[in-house]
Amino acid sequence: MKRYALGLDYGTNSMRAVLVNLQTAREVIELVENYPSGKDGVIVDHKNAHLARQNPADYLYCLEKIGRKLTKLMKRKGIKSEEVIGIGVDTTGSTPIPVDENLVPLAMKREFRNNKNAMAWLWKDHTSADEAEEITNLAKKVRPEYLSKIGGVYSSEWFFSKILHLARTDRKVFESSASFVELCDFIPAILTGCTSPSQVLRSICAAGHKAMYNLQWGGLPDEEFLEMLDPLFKNLRNKLYQKAYPAGVKAGGLSKYWAKKLGLCEGTPVSVGAFDAHMGAVGAGIKENVLVKIIGTSTCDIMIFPEEKNLPDIPGLCGIVPDSVVPGFIGLEAGQSAVGDIFYWFLKTFLPEKRKNIYDYYSRLAKNIKPGSSGLLALDWHNGNRTVLVDQKLTGLVVGFTLNTKPEELYRALIEATGFGARVIIDRLDEYGVKAHSIVACGGIAEKNSLLMQIYADITGKEIKIAASKQTCALGAAIFGAIAAGKEKSGFSDVRQVQETLCKFKPISYIPDKKNHEIYNLIYQEYKKLHDAFGLESYQGNLYSVMKNLLKIKLRTVG
Amino acid sequence: MKRYALGLDYGTNSMRAVLVNLQTAREVIELVENYPSGKDGVIVDHKNAHLARQNPADYLYCLEKIGRKLTKLMKRKGIKSEEVIGIGVDTTGSTPIPVDENLVPLAMKREFRNNKNAMAWLWKDHTSADEAEEITNLAKKVRPEYLSKIGGVYSSEWFFSKILHLARTDRKVFESSASFVELCDFIPAILTGCTSPSQVLRSICAAGHKAMYNLQWGGLPDEEFLEMLDPLFKNLRNKLYQKAYPAGVKAGGLSKYWAKKLGLCEGTPVSVGAFDAHMGAVGAGIKENVLVKIIGTSTCDIMIFPEEKNLPDIPGLCGIVPDSVVPGFIGLEAGQSAVGDIFYWFLKTFLPEKRKNIYDYYSRLAKNIKPGSSGLLALDWHNGNRTVLVDQKLTGLVVGFTLNTKPEELYRALIEATGFGARVIIDRLDEYGVKAHSIVACGGIAEKNSLLMQIYADITGKEIKIAASKQTCALGAAIFGAIAAGKEKSGFSDVRQVQETLCKFKPISYIPDKKNHEIYNLIYQEYKKLHDAFGLESYQGNLYSVMKNLLKIKLRTVG
Repeated sequence: MKRYALGLDYGTNSMRAVLVNLQTAREVIELVENYPSGKDGVIVDHKNAHLARQNPADYLYCLEKIGRKLTKLMKRKGIKSEEVIGIGVDTTGSTPIPVDENLVPLAMKREFRNNKNAMAWLWKDHTSADEAEEITNLAKKVRPEYLSKIGGVYSSEWFFSKILHLARTDRKVFESSASFVELCDFIPAILTGCTSPSQVLRSICAAGHKAMYNLQWGGLPDEEFLEMLDPLFKNLRNKLYQKAYPAGVKAGGLSKYWAKKLGLCEGTPVSVGAFDAHMGAVGAGIKENVLVKIIGTSTCDIMIFPEEKNLPDIPGLCGIVPDSVVPGFIGLEAGQSAVGDIFYWFLKTFLPEKRKNIYDYYSRLAKNIKPGSSGLLALDWHNGNRTVLVDQKLTGLVVGFTLNTKPEELYRALIEATGFGARVIIDRLDEYGVKAHSIVACGGIAEKNSLLMQIYADITGKEIKIAASKQTCALGAAIFGAIAAGKEKSGFSDVRQVQETLCKFKPISYIPDKKNHEIYNLIYQEYKKLHDAFGLESYQGNLYSVMKNLLKIKLRTVG
Repeated sequence: MKRYALGLDYGTNSMRAVLVNLQTAREVIELVENYPSGKDGVIVDHKNAHLARQNPADYLYCLEKIGRKLTKLMKRKGIKSEEVIGIGVDTTGSTPIPVDENLVPLAMKREFRNNKNAMAWLWKDHTSADEAEEITNLAKKVRPEYLSKIGGVYSSEWFFSKILHLARTDRKVFESSASFVELCDFIPAILTGCTSPSQVLRSICAAGHKAMYNLQWGGLPDEEFLEMLDPLFKNLRNKLYQKAYPAGVKAGGLSKYWAKKLGLCEGTPVSVGAFDAHMGAVGAGIKENVLVKIIGTSTCDIMIFPEEKNLPDIPGLCGIVPDSVVPGFIGLEAGQSAVGDIFYWFLKTFLPEKRKNIYDYYSRLAKNIKPGSSGLLALDWHNGNRTVLVDQKLTGLVVGFTLNTKPEELYRALIEATGFGARVIIDRLDEYGVKAHSIVACGGIAEKNSLLMQIYADITGKEIKIAASKQTCALGAAIFGAIAAGKEKSGFSDVRQVQETLCKFKPISYIPDKKNHEIYNLIYQEYKKLHDAFGLESYQGNLYSVMKNLLKIKLRTVG
């Protein structure tokens, strides 16, 4: 019998589905459906630039549409319902949804229609900056351990910041909520026919990375802490959950309703969900000593470390969570706040020529520039710094301008800046024993921008492979669908085994150029000086040498 | 009888002449003649970007052409030769010319035709960087006093650096030179019919600012020092001069030959020459407690200080020379290495739209940006820093980029950077007792860019007036022509008296806005941190606060 697994991937603007053959690794069906509401699926507010919500009805609407297409395509391709042995789900996060006691999102009830506070609070909603600071400060004072696994700072993008902001700004929605459910928990719950929040199996990925869940201190933050945050939180913990589960655990069987909509069998195992980056890392082939870098508008960097080995807390890492990526391993999450966003901003803002493909044009010009020869050096903090400084209140910097500086030189310097930013993360992990021997990259930029990929290889001194699948997140979800189905049905005993069959790389890989790597080693020393001087309150060094050394390197590479 | 004075101004690309009525202050004749050789008058070398020379024949060619036009125009306007009572000359500098024993520039002799080393070494020739460093280092060791009046560093643009580089790279030209004559000394010498270097009255402006001439140590650097620099310099001091003279001293009477060419009377008094910026400051109306700022591609800042008062050495000032601007006063010269050049580079490189007037367009946009609201801060070191750091090996820097940064914000930040650079100079002078109560600006940018002028007023907190004359340099030269003619002929007893008649301001002046000045005071603190951190080896502070404070100021000005 043929065996397939289905991966459902809920992104920021659209939902995707991939049906993969578990024997041949072929992704036989690939579907995309855009969210119908808001601006590209995001509900914004012209009075508040920080607000970003989603209409929960969109998630179900897209699921139905994809279900219809899937049914049709499976029929056409001769794939039988029973050959699809498992379903996995990944989503953005932290994207909590206020729900009622029947697991109905409040936004889908007449009473709260058009109330943005009743919608899903999308990961990139930044309305809760003050609350995030409060949580950080309180935890620093009374529960420092809560911050030890999340880089020392609780973010405005995360679960409790959002709930606290909601509680304070829209009491009615807050009090009408029976619970708050992460999108990655909501979708599996819906698929498996849950009808109350207490039935939902919560993901350890979301809980550990965004809600300070850790068994070291008994799961979620304790009641006393929550009440100290705000008396409104007195009863909150009871509305949430005691235990969280890794992906691969079966959340339940597919409900009759959704089996029909998707053209699959009732009871098909559905895995506990996880975040897109984490399942994407699995789809890209993550294993010990391999760093997976998902490069888009920003980056997400994922590594895993065996749970049986001793791992100290790593300062600046935004997440250190057992089982959050692959069961049996500690998942480590890092990230750069802006990468593709910087290039887009630079090219569109400063070089608004009507060229057909401005990226290609400037990449071609920048390719001919030797490392170090422009004398430019930039800090990639245009959107703050996630790892290792965990500081939104930082900005971009460029040094080394002369009256001859060319746009393509600045473009290349900005790419290099993100490469140096990537290296800081790798170095920090390395310092604490998490060694990346090589890198697997995925995401739009990894596939399209070979200049950037070669620069990253040259800066990090590590080989970079590109994941073959264009849908690594959905593929990762499908892998966990197969795991949830169990060994007997899938033929696989663990994630690594599925990966070995399903995860492929593109024929091209980027090998570091030795000479360029040496020059970048020199420039990286100057980057680190700037990084530490502007990023650390404790820095004691001197910056007088930065401009001088860049000019020396320039002279050396030009002459 | 009507009384006129003639000012001749030798710039980088052209020569200008102004005939001014000493009673009405009207500039009745204004002439411009472009140098015919090279690229806009500058001989360059495609193998050596640092080389910038001029063909000495151009100076005489333009003088003749201007003479013909002057003769014709004076006739047409009914101005009699004898009504022109004096002639003054200003030129670029340091621009030394190798000459033979008959004061003929070597480049004008068949033997050295087309040899760039035999030409005039234009002020902006930078081929002598190594020699400049050698001179600085030797002086630091054995004659530190030589550096005390020139900011501590001898420049590659200056007299002895150029002669030393010539001696080492073209022995034949060096040894065939009977002397080396600054352009500002050469023109008066030619006009007065000198036929040997020994007859030339050398300008104290050129000698003091560029050749380490000071009566404290007996004039030029001593023979021992010169020989220590290079044995080739053993006999150099004898080829030069013992004494230098301030402008206003009569260099001689106009020769018969040039009287005919210019349509003036033989014997008309010709003043000792000086540099353009210094005479320009006089033409702009310089007096005690007024800083004259000549704003073009770079700036030159001039102040004067009474010789009878006690003035300490001021670190970082590129020139402190008695009588170099106005007799009886110490002339103080400072400058910014790039101002207009930065805006030109930025707009042409990054915003190459085919707009009719890109300056006006971006100035209009930038005018609507409130100080501090962009969060950007730049260092204006794209061409190094002349005052107060005296360091070519510095580069431009911009901090505060976000993904929303707009080009007009960066344009404004670059203007502000030059304004902060201007304030550093004013502060340094102030600290040593040289107080600028107000500023007079002149030069192309001062006349055209009202946005920049208002920003400078707001940053410095000082009123800025604009000199009425478009030819302040030539006007300054004419003033010294009148002084050279003597009180009996001119009716003026000193420079101040002539200035009071001739120097006017435009009706508009720029008054600091109190609120903007307060915000700029905050931003200036951050500028100073960057300035000192990247510019001083000894800096011990911390830059962590820079991005934070800029964000705070931004929040304050936007909110």
